[in-house]
Amino acid sequence: MQVVLDYLKHNQPRFVAELCELLRFPSVSAQPQHKKDLRNCAEWLVKHCRQIGLEAKICPTAGHPIVLAKTPREKKTRKPHYMVYGHYDVQPPEPLDLWHTPPFEPRIEGRSLFARGSTDNKGQFFAHLAAVEAYLQTGTPLPCDLTFVIEGEEEVGSANLAKFLKSHRNELKCDAVVVSDTGIPDADHPALTYALRGIIAFEITLRGPSRDLHSGIFGGAVDNPAMALSQLLGKLRDKNGRIAIPGFYDDVAPLTTYERKEFARLPTNDAELQKLLGVKRLFGERGFTPTEQRSARPTFEINGLTSGYQGQGSKTIVPAWARTKITCRLVPDQNPARIRKAVCNHLKKICPPSVRLEIEAGHGAEAYLVSPTSAHAQAALRALRQAFGREPVLMREGGSIPIVNDFKKVLGADTLLLGLGLPEDNAHSPNEKFDLDCFENGQRMSALLWRELLH
Amino acid sequence: MQVVLDYLKHNQPRFVAELCELLRFPSVSAQPQHKKDLRNCAEWLVKHCRQIGLEAKICPTAGHPIVLAKTPREKKTRKPHYMVYGHYDVQPPEPLDLWHTPPFEPRIEGRSLFARGSTDNKGQFFAHLAAVEAYLQTGTPLPCDLTFVIEGEEEVGSANLAKFLKSHRNELKCDAVVVSDTGIPDADHPALTYALRGIIAFEITLRGPSRDLHSGIFGGAVDNPAMALSQLLGKLRDKNGRIAIPGFYDDVAPLTTYERKEFARLPTNDAELQKLLGVKRLFGERGFTPTEQRSARPTFEINGLTSGYQGQGSKTIVPAWARTKITCRLVPDQNPARIRKAVCNHLKKICPPSVRLEIEAGHGAEAYLVSPTSAHAQAALRALRQAFGREPVLMREGGSIPIVNDFKKVLGADTLLLGLGLPEDNAHSPNEKFDLDCFENGQRMSALLWRELLH
Repeated sequence: MQVVLDYLKHNQPRFVAELCELLRFPSVSAQPQHKKDLRNCAEWLVKHCRQIGLEAKICPTAGHPIVLAKTPREKKTRKPHYMVYGHYDVQPPEPLDLWHTPPFEPRIEGRSLFARGSTDNKGQFFAHLAAVEAYLQTGTPLPCDLTFVIEGEEEVGSANLAKFLKSHRNELKCDAVVVSDTGIPDADHPALTYALRGIIAFEITLRGPSRDLHSGIFGGAVDNPAMALSQLLGKLRDKNGRIAIPGFYDDVAPLTTYERKEFARLPTNDAELQKLLGVKRLFGERGFTPTEQRSARPTFEINGLTSGYQGQGSKTIVPAWARTKITCRLVPDQNPARIRKAVCNHLKKICPPSVRLEIEAGHGAEAYLVSPTSAHAQAALRALRQAFGREPVLMREGGSIPIVNDFKKVLGADTLLLGLGLPEDNAHSPNEKFDLDCFENGQRMSALLWRELLH
Repeated sequence: MQVVLDYLKHNQPRFVAELCELLRFPSVSAQPQHKKDLRNCAEWLVKHCRQIGLEAKICPTAGHPIVLAKTPREKKTRKPHYMVYGHYDVQPPEPLDLWHTPPFEPRIEGRSLFARGSTDNKGQFFAHLAAVEAYLQTGTPLPCDLTFVIEGEEEVGSANLAKFLKSHRNELKCDAVVVSDTGIPDADHPALTYALRGIIAFEITLRGPSRDLHSGIFGGAVDNPAMALSQLLGKLRDKNGRIAIPGFYDDVAPLTTYERKEFARLPTNDAELQKLLGVKRLFGERGFTPTEQRSARPTFEINGLTSGYQGQGSKTIVPAWARTKITCRLVPDQNPARIRKAVCNHLKKICPPSVRLEIEAGHGAEAYLVSPTSAHAQAALRALRQAFGREPVLMREGGSIPIVNDFKKVLGADTLLLGLGLPEDNAHSPNEKFDLDCFENGQRMSALLWRELLH
């Protein structure tokens, strides 16, 4: 193992130079004029993968191509198989005038490498390529088979990935997927993200009169749909911040003492969070810390309200209707279909008879969880500890990463989210950067991970 | 008196023909291209007033001119003085394709006279001109002095009327103002409108985070301003439809038994109202009939709601702010300033500490009431009874007519609202019409009114 780690240490300057080459491709998937740049980027990757000893090819899709690369398989033994997922497409760089140097001309300043795509996601998946190169080029036997799937459409919704996974189901079937495309709290706190929240969306409309009514002539004798909606919505959260829908919490897997202890180790600070968000004070479900509230507890969030007149001045009407857009963040083991039913049933039950209720509900996405005490998770934590020389933390992510559900559904595999991004890396923003210490530690983490996963 | 009534009866065809002439002027005050038409219309009126024996002149304003006409004053005695208010400007006729015949080419069908402005307001004030003509042309002594103020800007907010009233305060000072510019329930129910509701407007904004937040990353740990607003608004009306703001009802003058008995005589029907408005069912303050709710009880009406994302699909945010537009309809003796204070104080008290509250409140307009048992009101009811040959009804109007407050404030005079419009007259709509029976009965009502007012 030491020879692998020595190889990595020795080759840092070249790895950085190669990453800079990769960052020069303006592989902006959202912008049609960059179609060729994405293709060129994918071809560069295939060439690079082959150079370091992988079997690689371009897989065309209906959109931008996917790069598929594998460690050479040994015929005689069936080794454990892991998949590494990454994406070579990047966010649009606009607004360009906010960049200190051009987004596709990588610039190094101290331990920061500035370029669009540096942290999201070229730098992060390149760390895994460097690690496998170290095994292959030093002749160190890999304890497992590895497959790299590096797509070109993550920033535009991964529209063709699920199809690709299905059509390559047999060769991609694996014991786990490893993704480095999330963040860590700071350079001293390497992290395993072991859970994601799910989601379900609703659009609720209350209809009153057949048209907006003169509030002088008719106001007082008909219900106001905007008031009815306010009262309806107001009843759905109690004063302790708890969602007041029967059955909503039924399937929520309680946080374990271990998880809550681990969360308490996260370098977070309520006062700083409050300042960052610009709120007068934090508010959430009583009995849980802000970290728990925003990552491990479900929400019922109003995303939008619409009714009546919204322009300048006043318009004296009883509006014909009022509408709200809602998304619920879900946590393990809530089932979107059951939540949909609970919400719809409750709304129907409490909606006053003076208005008509219409509900549109999406299908939703389930939350995701790899037990932090599972063998995979514990292996990842050991690899992080050794690679970073720090005690890693356990995180839940409050958002959703839909592809993780695809990996589970199509390949039957859990995903280990081992992000290398820092909060100050400006992902999706001007002056995106990647920390070269995170890059190097990430390579070591990857190299160590394959060994630890087998312990 | 009989000679006056006979004169009216005898001259109906000519009155209708003259009204048709008046209706041919496209005096659309909102449309600049009709400026000259308004001027021409005013000049026609002055000429007509002089022909029937009034002293008349055009009074220029910053906008369209006002026609001022008076009965010849007798030097020796100081007679009671009444003012008749009307307006010669009309609503825009658009959409033209919905008119069965051109809006400014009067058409008679049965007892209906179709033209823009026929009911609102040329036909209605012309009835008063016919009545005074009958006195003047038959040499019947008028028991009072009359002044006609016919403005050209009612449909655009009467911007120059208050100034005119102030600058002509001495010559306009009067015992009461008579306005025929409202409606009656049907041809069998002549009506005195003896009260109007007042109004006060609020715009309430709740601010949470300094920007829209990602509902996955932060949702759960900060209050959602749209939810906070819903809960705030929801608390302002109880389940009986009563406004739950301390002090809100303190100054409401209770309905008298006489008023409620009179309301019960109105030819209204809850099922028909429900159908007309297209609501699933009527809803209002418990303990009051729909007629009372929409004319004699105050309201707290949400006119608009705005927050977050309102477009297609969903956007997973915690919105930075949520806003609502409110108008309260006020009734006698509520004071807009006290209501403003009660609403603001209560909002400040119940607003949660997790959001910032901003309130913009207008100055508002007071409600208006002429006691239905006052001498003026009783005289009007007698005139209506004799003119229409039907028992008149007493009505409150749910809307506000700001000029009535000006008459009270500037001239110190109560206003008798003696409308002649029918619900099916299509005021402000295509195919506006005026009922020729209402026209003739209105003339008789006017002629009888001047005598009854002195009894």
